[in-house]
This record gives sequence, structure tokens and C-alpha cells, in this order.
Amino acid sequence: MPTFTLDERLERDGIPIASIGLCQLRLMNDRRWPWLILIPQRDGVSEISDLSPLDQTMLTFETNLVATALKKVTEAEKINVGALGNIVRQLHVHVVARRTGDPNWPGPVWGFGKAEPWPETDHKAFAARILENL
Amino acid sequence: MPTFTLDERLERDGIPIASIGLCQLRLMNDRRWPWLILIPQRDGVSEISDLSPLDQTMLTFETNLVATALKKVTEAEKINVGALGNIVRQLHVHVVARRTGDPNWPGPVWGFGKAEPWPETDHKAFAARILENL
Repeated sequence: MPTFTLDERLERDGIPIASIGLCQLRLMNDRRWPWLILIPQRDGVSEISDLSPLDQTMLTFETNLVATALKKVTEAEKINVGALGNIVRQLHVHVVARRTGDPNWPGPVWGFGKAEPWPETDHKAFAARILENL
Repeated sequence: MPTFTLDERLERDGIPIASIGLCQLRLMNDRRWPWLILIPQRDGVSEISDLSPLDQTMLTFETNLVATALKKVTEAEKINVGALGNIVRQLHVHVVARRTGDPNWPGPVWGFGKAEPWPETDHKAFAARILENL
């Protein structure tokens, strides 16, 4: 089993929800948008193409599983999926629920304004609803 | 064979490069960044999860093929991959080559400033280099 160490910024900015196979699933600690992050538990990977073909397929499968659950739970108008990594190089995939009129709509969530942390009881309830729908 | 009609905004904003299987590959007509777009040739699809499992796997494969070619051709520091679709709902995947100091680095390319069209000879040469590396 390869080792895996989570990047400290991903650790700090998110709240762990579950390990769902290849990926750790985390909730971004920013309640402006329902925003989940998937991190493949592989060291030294920064591009999707650094993953093995099997891991790439797993990542696609898990991303879609999470996107479908997030869309159902939030009744989002659009799901935004992105793997940027310009700041944090450890490969991570953003899955964000968007709707008309949300902060920076229809622009991207990345780099916009300042995070607003979730109250603890709210993020626990939200994470529970995501898990029920995976 | 299902029908497929390209969204008129995707048609207007990009330059066709090739059809590579599931997807049309286009070059965004904005030379600020080397920026490719993949559009699965399926009608009525706006989320990745709207695709069949086979098409999802094809999209992953083609996205990685294109990302690898783009990284090689541009010697990019980081590839950004995103499927947003807040404005244009027809499913399309952005694959963008980024480097320190490029416009809006390390922020996202979407919604930033105004597109700068490619000179025609330049975009043809660039598209040819991408095709050689697929």
C-alpha cells in the first residue's frame, strides 16, 4: 500500500467527511458555497495524468458519485468540477454546488473573497446528508 | 448515432482542432493562455454525471490525453482542468496550461479580463503541435 500524507493546507482548509476508496472526501470550510474536495490518497501526484489508468477511472467514478450526491442534497443549478492546483500542488478535485446569485455567480469560486467558516453543527449535518446520498 | 449540435457560444469562442473520439477538441480563441476545450458530442448533456459510464471513462481518457499533450507542448508548470458550465450549459471541459506570472496567476482563468484573439498563423501552428502530440 503506497503511503499518503495530506497537504497541510488541504488539511487546514477542509473538514474530513470520509475515505471513499481512492479518495479522501472533505468539506471546504467555507459556507458561501456547498463545496467538497476529493483527494486521491497517493503521494507525489499533482496532475490527473500522474495517476495510473485504474486510479484515473476510480477518480472519475468517485467524482461523479460525489457530484451526484451534492446536486441531490443541494438541488444545485450547476455543479462545478475543477482540478487547478496552482497553489496547492497535491492533486485535489473541487466539486462545488452553484446557483444563480451565489457569491461571484456565474464566475468561479476560486480566489474570490474570504472564506466564511461553517458553524460546527451545520457542517456535521451537511456532511451526514452527503454521506447518506453517496 | 445520437445527434449533436455544438452550442453557438462554444462555436464562436473557439477554433476547431479535431474530433478525437467522444469529444470535439477546440482551441479557445484567447492567446493569454494555451487553452483547449473538449466537448463530448452528445446532445442534452450538461453535467459529467449525465454521460453514460462508458462516455465518462472516454471523457477522462481524452481529457488526460489532451492534458498530457498540452503540458508537453507548452512545458506548463500546472495544467488546470475544469467543467463549470455556469454560462454555457452544454458540457465542456477546459484544459489550460498555466505558469507563474501568467494573467491572473495563481487565480483561475475563467471570468478574468478580456480575450485576446490568436493571430491565425499562430493558432494553426499551435493546433498542429497539439495534434502531433496526441
